Amino acid sequence: MGGEPRSGGGSPDLVAGTTGISDVEGERGRLVYRGYDAVELAESRPFEAVWYLLDAGRLPDAAELEAFRIQIRAAGELSAHEARMVADVAGSAANSPPEREAPLAAVRTALSALAAHRGLSPWLERDLSELRRELLRLAASTPAVVCAVAAANRGRPPAGMGGDSQAERYLRGLTGRMPEEAAVRSLDRYLSLTADHGMNASTFVARVVASTGADPGAAVVAALGALSGPLHGGAPGPVLEMLDEIGTPDRARDWLARRVRGGHRIMGFGHRIYRTDDPRAMSLRRAAVEHGGGRTELALAVEGAALEVLAELKPGRTLRTNVEFWTAVTLEACGIPPALFTPTFATSRVIGWAAHIVEQAGDNRLIRPTVVYVGPRPADGAPSAATTD
Amino acid sequence: MGGEPRSGGGSPDLVAGTTGISDVEGERGRLVYRGYDAVELAESRPFEAVWYLLDAGRLPDAAELEAFRIQIRAAGELSAHEARMVADVAGSAANSPPEREAPLAAVRTALSALAAHRGLSPWLERDLSELRRELLRLAASTPAVVCAVAAANRGRPPAGMGGDSQAERYLRGLTGRMPEEAAVRSLDRYLSLTADHGMNASTFVARVVASTGADPGAAVVAALGALSGPLHGGAPGPVLEMLDEIGTPDRARDWLARRVRGGHRIMGFGHRIYRTDDPRAMSLRRAAVEHGGGRTELALAVEGAALEVLAELKPGRTLRTNVEFWTAVTLEACGIPPALFTPTFATSRVIGWAAHIVEQAGDNRLIRPTVVYVGPRPADGAPSAATTD
Repeated sequence: MGGEPRSGGGSPDLVAGTTGISDVEGERGRLVYRGYDAVELAESRPFEAVWYLLDAGRLPDAAELEAFRIQIRAAGELSAHEARMVADVAGSAANSPPEREAPLAAVRTALSALAAHRGLSPWLERDLSELRRELLRLAASTPAVVCAVAAANRGRPPAGMGGDSQAERYLRGLTGRMPEEAAVRSLDRYLSLTADHGMNASTFVARVVASTGADPGAAVVAALGALSGPLHGGAPGPVLEMLDEIGTPDRARDWLARRVRGGHRIMGFGHRIYRTDDPRAMSLRRAAVEHGGGRTELALAVEGAALEVLAELKPGRTLRTNVEFWTAVTLEACGIPPALFTPTFATSRVIGWAAHIVEQAGDNRLIRPTVVYVGPRPADGAPSAATTD
Repeated sequence: MGGEPRSGGGSPDLVAGTTGISDVEGERGRLVYRGYDAVELAESRPFEAVWYLLDAGRLPDAAELEAFRIQIRAAGELSAHEARMVADVAGSAANSPPEREAPLAAVRTALSALAAHRGLSPWLERDLSELRRELLRLAASTPAVVCAVAAANRGRPPAGMGGDSQAERYLRGLTGRMPEEAAVRSLDRYLSLTADHGMNASTFVARVVASTGADPGAAVVAALGALSGPLHGGAPGPVLEMLDEIGTPDRARDWLARRVRGGHRIMGFGHRIYRTDDPRAMSLRRAAVEHGGGRTELALAVEGAALEVLAELKPGRTLRTNVEFWTAVTLEACGIPPALFTPTFATSRVIGWAAHIVEQAGDNRLIRPTVVYVGPRPADGAPSAATTD
């Protein structure tokens, strides 16, 4: 066959409307969730309150929060039939040995099966409150789906998921052990900090799919596909590999300088939008310093050395610590295996997707961009396609 | 919880780069596939040649076409293990009675499982020819997946899929019978005409997901989600319901005029881009007239009456027959049940998605649009999120 077609691909001028859900203030280094500073929220409120805010548009009072906790806890439990189906599907979709690198394809398949099984139908011409309820349930079920996939990959039955907070239930479901309080608090903060982040690729995909009127399962499954790409959600794992290779704090500076001089990127530094500190990274660092555990000390040394090395060798660039660096350190300290970092990310970001799908549906227009055709055209009078060759 | 958030949603100025694959010439009413008139191709070449063109960038000679036929026929056969898995997953995902309206969620789940099972991994840092091969195989497998889902929904084992052309194999797999030659030829033309169509919503979703570096399965599954929306791929079924309601040619004019006067749309008329005849509809109509069968006569009468009624009652608008109208008539005449119209569409459009994913990967940049935040911002000095309420 002929050569690879080589054209197009960029996104030079892609403006995708408006949103009231979150804003990434890149110059200032602030993330806003519906009018609130996301870091302040994450450091002062439980994750469930942030979820409520993103879903409902305002913070809950104490009674509303308690009711919401109960609601999502119940919504997050798979029925026995669903649990069996998710385990079957996860087992069927698995093709690699246990602890495979990318269980996200199995999570995608299992979530798709769950949505299909629940009979979710196109939202067009239905009540939006129904759509919102279905999405809340799907988002609440995502941690159980991830735990079921993880268990299927290890060839074990899923563990129970008891606990007051989603962070606690998720850690219990994943590890089968009672998590330490510090881990629960770190994960809770992580979930709040990563639940939404402007019009990132996966959120945009969720909105484009929703704009066709498709069922909410189709939109969430599509978004999960985008999240699985290494340029979007799939990058925290390599941060740990870097820490492994560096090994001890005293080796950090030389190792990093060698990498930068060799023309390589340093994993976990630099961000497309933030021109200053990534506020999520700073908040996760504070949690790590407060709670200790894991490889916090090594990470602090590597971060310090990296910022020095980058300032010295890349003086014109603003390369600060991004959220992936401290995500990797935080999730490892919580006892989550690296293969499950991106699926864990999915358990928080699905909340942002849900809010965006509802927002899209509330004022919908099919998203169909224009594109410039740069290929040849049939010339009038030229040999046509019907010519025999 | 609070009221529905209501903002954003439109796509005012969404320019998504360039492509060399296809162009929709809306004013002229021409669809171009890599320099050729798509209608000329569809009417003079087998579908497999059009597929080759979209994939490879040029038409095959006779030997290349023969080799390609053999290649995709082989690639399209599921292994015994894959077939069992797809049947299991389709059965698990099914929740509704047989002949349910939307088996697309099961197709989405089964394709996702197949991609996961094949261990498709992110394309970033891999050879693009590998990506292209994986996509060719996935596209070639899609008809078998649809047939397996259809069989599972009916509680039957899938039928065999013998035959020289994809159109023949698909019809045999779906119906379990040797199809008539006219049906094979009509479906062959349909597959060619609908394989690509500029930057439609599902193709765009495939490209956004691919732009994250995600595996080709994630991109195809996401695109399928967009296709399932009634505003994109999900509309040919209602055309048949309209024909059912009209019943006989003599009733067409009154029925249609009543609908239009009542403020309703007529299914199968009007297009977002074509300002003149949709060339695909015209070509499918020619095939229907030539091959007869199905409800061609009623459809011709309804079309004629609809065009008259629309010209009279909506004089300012260019409302011509669109591809959905003749798709419905054509697929029904082929013996395909309406619930499988959109899955059948997926068996051709997946070829366009595949070409676009390869094009995106060939010159990639993460597609992350900008968005305007229209929500409130934290006021400096105002009560913060940490305030207890």
